[in-house]
Amino acid sequence: MGKASDAGVNLQDIMAARRRIAPYVVRTPTVLAKGLKERVGAEVALKLDSLQHTGSFKLRGATNRMLRLSPAEREAGVVACSTGNHGRAVAEAARRLGIPAKITLSELVPENKLAGIRAHGAETIIHGRSQDEAFEEAHRLVREEGMTLIDTFDHPDVIAGQGTAGLELLEDMPDIDTLLVPLSGGGLMAGIAVAAKAANPNIRVIGISMERGPAMIESLRAGKPVQVEEQSSLADSLGGGIGLDNRWSFPLVRALGDDFILLSEDEIAAGMTHLYWHEQLVAEGASAVGIGALLSGKVKPRDGGTIATVVSGCNVDMATFTRVVAGDAY
Amino acid sequence: MGKASDAGVNLQDIMAARRRIAPYVVRTPTVLAKGLKERVGAEVALKLDSLQHTGSFKLRGATNRMLRLSPAEREAGVVACSTGNHGRAVAEAARRLGIPAKITLSELVPENKLAGIRAHGAETIIHGRSQDEAFEEAHRLVREEGMTLIDTFDHPDVIAGQGTAGLELLEDMPDIDTLLVPLSGGGLMAGIAVAAKAANPNIRVIGISMERGPAMIESLRAGKPVQVEEQSSLADSLGGGIGLDNRWSFPLVRALGDDFILLSEDEIAAGMTHLYWHEQLVAEGASAVGIGALLSGKVKPRDGGTIATVVSGCNVDMATFTRVVAGDAY
Repeated sequence: MGKASDAGVNLQDIMAARRRIAPYVVRTPTVLAKGLKERVGAEVALKLDSLQHTGSFKLRGATNRMLRLSPAEREAGVVACSTGNHGRAVAEAARRLGIPAKITLSELVPENKLAGIRAHGAETIIHGRSQDEAFEEAHRLVREEGMTLIDTFDHPDVIAGQGTAGLELLEDMPDIDTLLVPLSGGGLMAGIAVAAKAANPNIRVIGISMERGPAMIESLRAGKPVQVEEQSSLADSLGGGIGLDNRWSFPLVRALGDDFILLSEDEIAAGMTHLYWHEQLVAEGASAVGIGALLSGKVKPRDGGTIATVVSGCNVDMATFTRVVAGDAY
Repeated sequence: MGKASDAGVNLQDIMAARRRIAPYVVRTPTVLAKGLKERVGAEVALKLDSLQHTGSFKLRGATNRMLRLSPAEREAGVVACSTGNHGRAVAEAARRLGIPAKITLSELVPENKLAGIRAHGAETIIHGRSQDEAFEEAHRLVREEGMTLIDTFDHPDVIAGQGTAGLELLEDMPDIDTLLVPLSGGGLMAGIAVAAKAANPNIRVIGISMERGPAMIESLRAGKPVQVEEQSSLADSLGGGIGLDNRWSFPLVRALGDDFILLSEDEIAAGMTHLYWHEQLVAEGASAVGIGALLSGKVKPRDGGTIATVVSGCNVDMATFTRVVAGDAY
């Protein structure tokens, strides 16, 4: 699946992805935040991919990846290993495209997450007592049953799919100056950065992770992909590694990211709380890091520029969410 | 401002409105409800106009109305009498279009509503101790200063503007079978019904109000516009009269509405509570009546049909909202 361009993904790939996935995804809106201009000294736009089918941007990349499979690959089916937004996205994209899908999970996966994935029609396979063992089962299905693994972020078709969110954002708000992107494995940040830098290389693209286990940012510091210990966080969607054999998202994020910021749990909670009380939005912790970074003062607006952030998902345990926005312990 | 067509507004008017207002409004998405299919036995689509600038669909009609003014009318400015979503919409549309705007309000308007309107840049004029006296001041400005009154709902340009929400909904979900529309003065229902019936006369269009002071439904029962006593309700945006001299919205709603349903306060609260816990959406009471009607069993799906409802706004007092969705007294 090699690509001609050096960077791996270019704007043309994202444009092609957009046309390809259009029938299957929501063209989500960009809205101006109501309650931030005075507090942060700049207009702030919110790209609401929390309204995407399956409740997160991940459907874009998974759909684009699957639409690029050959007829034989589609027939053999797809496999993914994810308890969260990527698992839901692969299950739903496969259902819509009529592709058999298996999601491998460890015995530790909670019942509600299992139900969330089964609701989209995918077969779930419980294997082993860790994410690593569940991944091993996914790789076995690839080797022995000829299924295709749908990567969470490290594939050019996944990155191009996520980049469609950036393309839409730029169309809606063409004079954006700074982009704040939730950063985990880097698929979203890489895709959005490709679109933004093609539009204008001076747009600042800033990746934001949580202090608790920021695999990409630790890898950037080390100059190569490294493993980090996974920790619990309000921004749990940003957890997990970037893959020691990362080929695509790490180099793109390293080449195109202008700055990287880490947030404490309280700063993430402040972002969620603001989105609820002032913007009337329910967002998972990972979605609120852009707002959290602004409220913390860790990102400063440039003179007169418009800032945008991606509200990337809404799959949050509502009891936890309700406690967080009420200011209770979480 | 007479119209050629008998009905007052047709699909062509709505198409023209859409093209006219496109640069000023959000093209809002339609999403499938996640938590309703099993409960109500049908797919339910949500048109999220709660994400519109100013937090409600009202911006569509106000913008279309103002874009149809002559240069002389624009220069003389516009006036509206509304403490709520319409007031915000007129203020914001006027600001974007560079038209002077005055919003007349009674002394009873709470400080936070006043601030909400001033935030959009309109001049507020406090006059009298009732909505009627504030309206009288608006009419005086029309008579003596040549300003144009921007009606809340009873004008073909306003109705055509609100109808653009219906056009978008039908494009996103062309096989809709039943439409549940929050019903107050009838501008939204009339506009959406024109679009829906043009697409397919068999689409059911059902208007939903609250038991507490449903002016349009009382008027339909009486066969002519009647006054009703205004009462407090969770769906406060649906309060107010339809105008005893109603010319446009009453005949359209009467001609095109297939059914009309009244909800109790508890049924409205159930709609809001569902939207929060199961759809991760913050919606004002008026926005939740479609969901409330489905959960109450007062609307039954037709075999295999897809139901859609407009989540029409998110301007709700968040302290009240938080109490409602927690199941506390409200």
